[in-house]
Amino acid sequence: MTAKPSKQLETFPNPNPQRDYTIRIESPEFTCLCPKTCQPDFATILIEYVPDQLCIELKSYKLYLWSYRDEGAFHEAVTNRILDDLVAACRPRWMRIEARFNVRGGIYTTVTAEYRKD
Amino acid sequence: MTAKPSKQLETFPNPNPQRDYTIRIESPEFTCLCPKTCQPDFATILIEYVPDQLCIELKSYKLYLWSYRDEGAFHEAVTNRILDDLVAACRPRWMRIEARFNVRGGIYTTVTAEYRKD
Amino acid sequence: MTAKPSKQLETFPNPNPQRDYTIRIESPEFTCLCPKTCQPDFATILIEYVPDQLCIELKSYKLYLWSYRDEGAFHEAVTNRILDDLVAACRPRWMRIEARFNVRGGIYTTVTAEYRKD
Amino acid sequence: MTAKPSKQLETFPNPNPQRDYTIRIESPEFTCLCPKTCQPDFATILIEYVPDQLCIELKSYKLYLWSYRDEGAFHEAVTNRILDDLVAACRPRWMRIEARFNVRGGIYTTVTAEYRKD
Amino acid sequence: MTAKPSKQLETFPNPNPQRDYTIRIESPEFTCLCPKTCQPDFATILIEYVPDQLCIELKSYKLYLWSYRDEGAFHEAVTNRILDDLVAACRPRWMRIEARFNVRGGIYTTVTAEYRKD
Amino acid sequence: MTAKPSKQLETFPNPNPQRDYTIRIESPEFTCLCPKTCQPDFATILIEYVPDQLCIELKSYKLYLWSYRDEGAFHEAVTNRILDDLVAACRPRWMRIEARFNVRGGIYTTVTAEYRKD
Amino acid sequence: MTAKPSKQLETFPNPNPQRDYTIRIESPEFTCLCPKTCQPDFATILIEYVPDQLCIELKSYKLYLWSYRDEGAFHEAVTNRILDDLVAACRPRWMRIEARFNVRGGIYTTVTAEYRKD
Amino acid sequence: MTAKPSKQLETFPNPNPQRDYTIRIESPEFTCLCPKTCQPDFATILIEYVPDQLCIELKSYKLYLWSYRDEGAFHEAVTNRILDDLVAACRPRWMRIEARFNVRGGIYTTVTAEYRKD
Amino acid sequence: MTAKPSKQLETFPNPNPQRDYTIRIESPEFTCLCPKTCQPDFATILIEYVPDQLCIELKSYKLYLWSYRDEGAFHEAVTNRILDDLVAACRPRWMRIEARFNVRGGIYTTVTAEYRKD
Amino acid sequence: MTAKPSKQLETFPNPNPQRDYTIRIESPEFTCLCPKTCQPDFATILIEYVPDQLCIELKSYKLYLWSYRDEGAFHEAVTNRILDDLVAACRPRWMRIEARFNVRGGIYTTVTAEYRKD
Repeated sequence: MTAKPSKQLETFPNPNPQRDYTIRIESPEFTCLCPKTCQPDFATILIEYVPDQLCIELKSYKLYLWSYRDEGAFHEAVTNRILDDLVAACRPRWMRIEARFNVRGGIYTTVTAEYRKD
Repeated sequence: MTAKPSKQLETFPNPNPQRDYTIRIESPEFTCLCPKTCQPDFATILIEYVPDQLCIELKSYKLYLWSYRDEGAFHEAVTNRILDDLVAACRPRWMRIEARFNVRGGIYTTVTAEYRKD
Repeated sequence: MTAKPSKQLETFPNPNPQRDYTIRIESPEFTCLCPKTCQPDFATILIEYVPDQLCIELKSYKLYLWSYRDEGAFHEAVTNRILDDLVAACRPRWMRIEARFNVRGGIYTTVTAEYRKD
Repeated sequence: MTAKPSKQLETFPNPNPQRDYTIRIESPEFTCLCPKTCQPDFATILIEYVPDQLCIELKSYKLYLWSYRDEGAFHEAVTNRILDDLVAACRPRWMRIEARFNVRGGIYTTVTAEYRKD
Repeated sequence: MTAKPSKQLETFPNPNPQRDYTIRIESPEFTCLCPKTCQPDFATILIEYVPDQLCIELKSYKLYLWSYRDEGAFHEAVTNRILDDLVAACRPRWMRIEARFNVRGGIYTTVTAEYRKD
Repeated sequence: MTAKPSKQLETFPNPNPQRDYTIRIESPEFTCLCPKTCQPDFATILIEYVPDQLCIELKSYKLYLWSYRDEGAFHEAVTNRILDDLVAACRPRWMRIEARFNVRGGIYTTVTAEYRKD
Repeated sequence: MTAKPSKQLETFPNPNPQRDYTIRIESPEFTCLCPKTCQPDFATILIEYVPDQLCIELKSYKLYLWSYRDEGAFHEAVTNRILDDLVAACRPRWMRIEARFNVRGGIYTTVTAEYRKD
Repeated sequence: MTAKPSKQLETFPNPNPQRDYTIRIESPEFTCLCPKTCQPDFATILIEYVPDQLCIELKSYKLYLWSYRDEGAFHEAVTNRILDDLVAACRPRWMRIEARFNVRGGIYTTVTAEYRKD
Repeated sequence: MTAKPSKQLETFPNPNPQRDYTIRIESPEFTCLCPKTCQPDFATILIEYVPDQLCIELKSYKLYLWSYRDEGAFHEAVTNRILDDLVAACRPRWMRIEARFNVRGGIYTTVTAEYRKD
Repeated sequence: MTAKPSKQLETFPNPNPQRDYTIRIESPEFTCLCPKTCQPDFATILIEYVPDQLCIELKSYKLYLWSYRDEGAFHEAVTNRILDDLVAACRPRWMRIEARFNVRGGIYTTVTAEYRKD
């Protein structure tokens, strides 16, 4: 019950590294601050990845998303940063992020980025 | 662009006080903290009211909802408090609040309360 | 093909005045300007009424809605005014208006008003 | 296979006249001509009724709706006329018609009328 | 595994006869034959009732619906007959049947009937 | 993290007992065993109530629902029993339960019961 | 009626082994226990496969899924294990599993894995 | 009006054999008997094909589907058999069948097969 | 206002012939007569095309579809004919037609054809 | 608060130019005038692009769309022009526009165009 927001992502060993398979985690509760207006932004963050040796631990991922709650973050930059952080943490064979931001000024923005191991 | 969260609700004169009519405002971006776990809670807040002499000014209402972002708040208490604050601010002929909280522990909670002028 | 926006509403004789019946007209293409920001607002306007001796002529109603395209109009005031104008034009036994405005600042606003002949 | 459009509605004896019950028939394939532009109009016609001694025979009802295919008909008038014809044919205890016309000029029109035996 | 279609409805004692409560059973797999064309008809049968001393046993109800598979049955008559049979079997405080028949000749028919204990 | 299934329902003081308001809790994860076949049954349990002096504590309610996981339970009886247990625990001014069971034998069953304080 | 949960999967001869075709079986009633919290988890399990000489017998598959009811199982491991067990039982030409777990901590997880005969 | 169920499929000459095009026919009213329990099964049968010299005549296809009403038929076998019969009748350039069976024992089964002319 | 049904399709010069782009026009109001029963058929006609030098003028296209209102037309033949007529009129780089006919005899038919410039 | 419609599109540096990723912006509030009838047209404009060195600034894009409010614009030409303007402003690696216009004369039109850097 002493959970705190944290940029620290934890992992656990992939139970089936011999097989390519996909994990998809959808979080409709992402919120950060708009760097221009300082007002809250909201988004659904969707991650899909093929794990290699490590899987993302879900509770630490929840605390990781929470860590953006008081940070200013542009749509494009924060989407790429979350992808970079997740890739750095679990070194997947492939990963894709889709960030669907709530409407602002009558415009719905979605940013999508992908990582593929060489 | 210097907007800040604030419990201060503003109003403007009802342009048609001679007629009973209804204003409905739906905000899918309410977030507060769970007083037990300190973790974020999310809800959609739906207000419906029949104004008397005053209407709720929307921008101040947005800042008002924002003011709960860093506060601990139980579902039942915060729903009733928002109703009380809005009633105090605009003295409507009738008002109803419906707070639909995001699923927690596999359970979806919605709290609904109503005020009616005597 | 020389249609122009116009506040002039036309009517035609109710073909069945001996019976109470309902006409519902829904227009998803209403737009006006926000008096504060001068930026465009959008709404769906839904009218439901029981005609007495006169029905609203649809083409003139379309031009009537069009006439708000370059006018500043607050949500509450414009909804009540459209109701007043339609009531004045066709003197219905009963009429109800529902104006569903597009989201602004993360908030969806709907204004509903009703007229009933004494 | 020699079916022809016809205003002649047929009926059959209500198998359960001792009980009030409801029959609902929905026809998404009504079409007539607009008396102003002579162009086709389309509607879904929904009938709900409590039969008394007679029920509407469905095949004759289909031919009846078909009989409007080449006729000019205003929304309000044709809805009331279909109700009148059905009431005359089967003398129900109660009947309601809802005619949902396809969008024209950006406006969706629905006409609803009701008959109740004295 | 020797189930056979049967008009015999079975019941079991209502476990809570001291309280008025509602049981709703929906069966999307009703089929009978059209008495005119001898071709199959299909419907969803929806029963809602307040049991008195007896509840309908579901397996016998399934076999009961099955018993219509090779019988000719008009929409209005069969709906009323199912209601009568169920009422005779379990003597409910209140019962309602809604039979939604599949589209025939472009027309969707729904028959609804109700029983209320005196 | 030592949560165990338990029939023990906990409550907390209603923060606004002076006002009638409604709490709605929906749980799509109820499962018990069919007393006839011993096989698992699944349901969504929906509770709506007006609290008096006490509100149902959500975590204990989750453990309460969990306590049915290994119990045989008929649809009608278990729905009424859950209502009785909740009423006994929090003595509400009004409570309603709706239990929507998963399809069995092509039939969807929903049981609804209500309690009202005298 | 003496069905019991069992890891034993049964098969029957593919009636059309000369043709590649697909069988898809969707089970919205999978439940196991979370190994960390010991609390119930719920998922929809979707299997799609091209049978070779054997097809999965559905009743034994239902008992197989049931066998996880009292077992602790991580999302990623259990999905891969079900795939392995089904592949071992029926030796398909191709098989795919998709396990859609219910939301936990505001996060929806779906695990997808595939087997292809060499 | 003397239609009878029949395994005899009729065809008519393809009006445009010089062009590859697709015909899709969806029938939500397929029913047969389960060979194990002798109880009715229900399915939606979806056919998609590129005709060569012949098209399937729809009325005979309806009678063909009807011919399964009193036959026992396993999901996998009947799907492949319908495909074989249709291919034999109209010799298409390509054909695909999808049979979506109603839920049984909490499991939804869909069988899909394809034929391609060499 | 003197519009008449007409097989004459009009075109206008493609404003961007240097670029491949797609125009999609969907008409839910197509009706013709069944050549066998002489009764009305209804369909939604969906055209998608990459224009070359000419685009289809929409008003003439509407009158073109209207021209089938009193003509007998088989599903397969009329779909291919509309495609041929549109191709002849505007010589597109690519065109696709999808005709979704309303349910007849419990069967939904969709015909799809494609043209590609050599 | 002194925003004005403007054809001037602004950009900001792509925060992640080393990676191909996609930005999608959807605007349901586009309106212009029909050059033939001078009456308002409405559309949803959907842009998807892979930025190179520059991203489209959203507020200027909103003002850009607004600048069409009083301009006559044909569906095909305006869609291609918006694409050209956006490409000129931000020189993306790839861009796609989809303009879904509201129904006119019973016909729904969607225009789609794509740009790809050589």
